[in-house]
Amino acid sequence: MHWDMRALGPRDRYKIIGSCIVPRPIAWISSLSADGVPNLAPFSFFNAMGNDPPILAIGMVKSATAGFKDTAANIRDTGDFVVNLVKAEHAALMNATSADLPPEIEEAALAGVQMEASLCVSAQRVADAPVAFECRTVHYIETGPCQVTVLAEVLMAHVADQFVTDPDRIHFDIEAMDMVARMHGAGWYSRQTNLFEMLRP
Amino acid sequence: MHWDMRALGPRDRYKIIGSCIVPRPIAWISSLSADGVPNLAPFSFFNAMGNDPPILAIGMVKSATAGFKDTAANIRDTGDFVVNLVKAEHAALMNATSADLPPEIEEAALAGVQMEASLCVSAQRVADAPVAFECRTVHYIETGPCQVTVLAEVLMAHVADQFVTDPDRIHFDIEAMDMVARMHGAGWYSRQTNLFEMLRP
Repeated sequence: MHWDMRALGPRDRYKIIGSCIVPRPIAWISSLSADGVPNLAPFSFFNAMGNDPPILAIGMVKSATAGFKDTAANIRDTGDFVVNLVKAEHAALMNATSADLPPEIEEAALAGVQMEASLCVSAQRVADAPVAFECRTVHYIETGPCQVTVLAEVLMAHVADQFVTDPDRIHFDIEAMDMVARMHGAGWYSRQTNLFEMLRP
Repeated sequence: MHWDMRALGPRDRYKIIGSCIVPRPIAWISSLSADGVPNLAPFSFFNAMGNDPPILAIGMVKSATAGFKDTAANIRDTGDFVVNLVKAEHAALMNATSADLPPEIEEAALAGVQMEASLCVSAQRVADAPVAFECRTVHYIETGPCQVTVLAEVLMAHVADQFVTDPDRIHFDIEAMDMVARMHGAGWYSRQTNLFEMLRP
């Protein structure tokens, strides 16, 4: 079957895009408003885009009710943020920070997420995230009246000591991180426990 | 532990970015050169970025030996391409198309991947892909001397009949698609067989 995307409404388009492109890695983004109010929220329209320089992309959508999430406004205003990655142990905490709350509410404090100062950016990072990337925006692209794609450079990478198996060769125990990914529907997620190896031809 | 990304070489940066941001959905991209030579190759710096209009992002990196993959050159020259998604059954075929081959070689024919005409774009799609998106480039952003991020609009979405559980309500059996994702290292992949549900607060 096929669907002409231009003939569909945004909700049906979302069903197709958000259900079929899976699994999606999750960026649990901590940012700071121009007024200094911290924010923490998860995004799954997210991935690496390159390594030289190291670039991440994040897509943010304006919801019918809430406008741009505070994160998008903070990134537009300050340019800086932290992408924290989400281990299975943090799944419920991450989900707790996905509520639509007014900008003055601090999701991290409300959910009990411990934060820690960053080294290069003003936004704090999730203290015991398996991985955290301190980022600075290089392109802020409005791809529609209600959505933006942020391309950002990773300035600093943090990996929790327990997952660093060889610091000199930069080897990590990725399986032990037990990363959570976004799947389809309103709330399906997956864990990466079914791995296999294929070498490039 | 932390690493200042600006103090690392591109190879070490790739280790951090490509190992930690997992799982990554795979775009198996079919494109056509300006001369009409078809190409098929997988990319895992890929995700949805929005739904209104429906936008996908793909990051492409120039390798030290091979320059930009043919796909990046084709997209720059023609603007059009198809993102095919990869079910577990297609994993070995997808991997076979990841070899660095000269531009005149047709990976699909070589690997025995059946292709089919698209409806809106000149590039063909993988005939029995679970999902295929016909795309047109809207932004071609050089994020470094050796890498590009392509933002493209999805014009037409194909979903294989066997996975469409309710065409009117646009419901799919995503679990049955058994999508493959890219993990860490030179060749680790995952299947999405360990799912759980969390509803938004």
